[in-house]
Amino acid sequence: MSYFVTPIAKLIEEFEKLPGIGPKSAQRLAFYVVNLPPEKALKLANAIKEAKEKVKYCSVCGNLTDKDPCMVCNSENRDRSVICVVENPRDIVAMEKTREFKGLYHVLHGAISPMEGIGPEDIKIKELLSRLQPGEVKEIIIATNPNIEGEATAMYIAKLLKPLGIKTTRIAHGIPVGGDLEYADEVTLAKALQGRREI
Amino acid sequence: MSYFVTPIAKLIEEFEKLPGIGPKSAQRLAFYVVNLPPEKALKLANAIKEAKEKVKYCSVCGNLTDKDPCMVCNSENRDRSVICVVENPRDIVAMEKTREFKGLYHVLHGAISPMEGIGPEDIKIKELLSRLQPGEVKEIIIATNPNIEGEATAMYIAKLLKPLGIKTTRIAHGIPVGGDLEYADEVTLAKALQGRREI
Repeated sequence: MSYFVTPIAKLIEEFEKLPGIGPKSAQRLAFYVVNLPPEKALKLANAIKEAKEKVKYCSVCGNLTDKDPCMVCNSENRDRSVICVVENPRDIVAMEKTREFKGLYHVLHGAISPMEGIGPEDIKIKELLSRLQPGEVKEIIIATNPNIEGEATAMYIAKLLKPLGIKTTRIAHGIPVGGDLEYADEVTLAKALQGRREI
Repeated sequence: MSYFVTPIAKLIEEFEKLPGIGPKSAQRLAFYVVNLPPEKALKLANAIKEAKEKVKYCSVCGNLTDKDPCMVCNSENRDRSVICVVENPRDIVAMEKTREFKGLYHVLHGAISPMEGIGPEDIKIKELLSRLQPGEVKEIIIATNPNIEGEATAMYIAKLLKPLGIKTTRIAHGIPVGGDLEYADEVTLAKALQGRREI
């Protein structure tokens, strides 16, 4: 015998499929939703439907957007000579929050990972190359994650870009602000040393 | 400027309202949903709508159900002489999982809490009393939570039931199975001592 009536069991099952939601949290969420006023539950259901229906990938940079091209690609205030290459759209949000970067983006939608069978042709590297009109783009900042896959992807792209004469840079590795030297791993600390700058 | 396009921002906002979901998790969930195949996102949205539409409270015991009366109240295999009183429908799930209890339930939908302005008339105590046909119910097991509100509620109900000549019991407090004496708080340990049984 199941402990839940069918509609609740189904809802729990759906919540459990979400990342970071285990059986206990799914149960808690389902009971919470069932106790919501009907209009609030509907608002959640509709937000899911609407986000799925309206949000597409930008045909230029691959970011998530409800208009094509996206806000960044369409903006007249962005510096079109710099493209920041990231692994996924969430990384764009993180970059935008710094308010430091005023260029364009390119989303790879993944990173090269031989372990998972993801090769250079499986991520949007071709699309990046086809955006590089001669003369317009002066710098590519590679902001893939600082792990094996991200580094491999960065090296691969840098190698492709070298013959095109476009400056390719990589974001700095080092100790996070507010971090503690004592607890930093040795690879990060080594990178922080290598990347030292005069003050 | 918002970092998200409107449909994503809305979805994040809706996810953030759920219990235990902070801004970061909400963002993660929203991006996950947007990346789902459309039919899977719809399944989640529909499960929410359906659970909200189909699930009601049982008119007898107050449990969540899609039929009225609920499965337990309707079942011929349950012992109608015992009613277990719990604070909310999730507690019924926990009780059912023990496979130890074969009686009926009564959900109070809360506990007496003067701090929050919840008095005896705000929870389903009247409804419990009206279920007690003379002769049919022989025992009421009070399984409210072992905190101040739950204890107050248990005492209040026990006092009401005394003149009716119905046996009223309270679930045992003690050290959880797998727990450690060393880390048990003194109140629990005292309760465990008081509740000791011959072996």
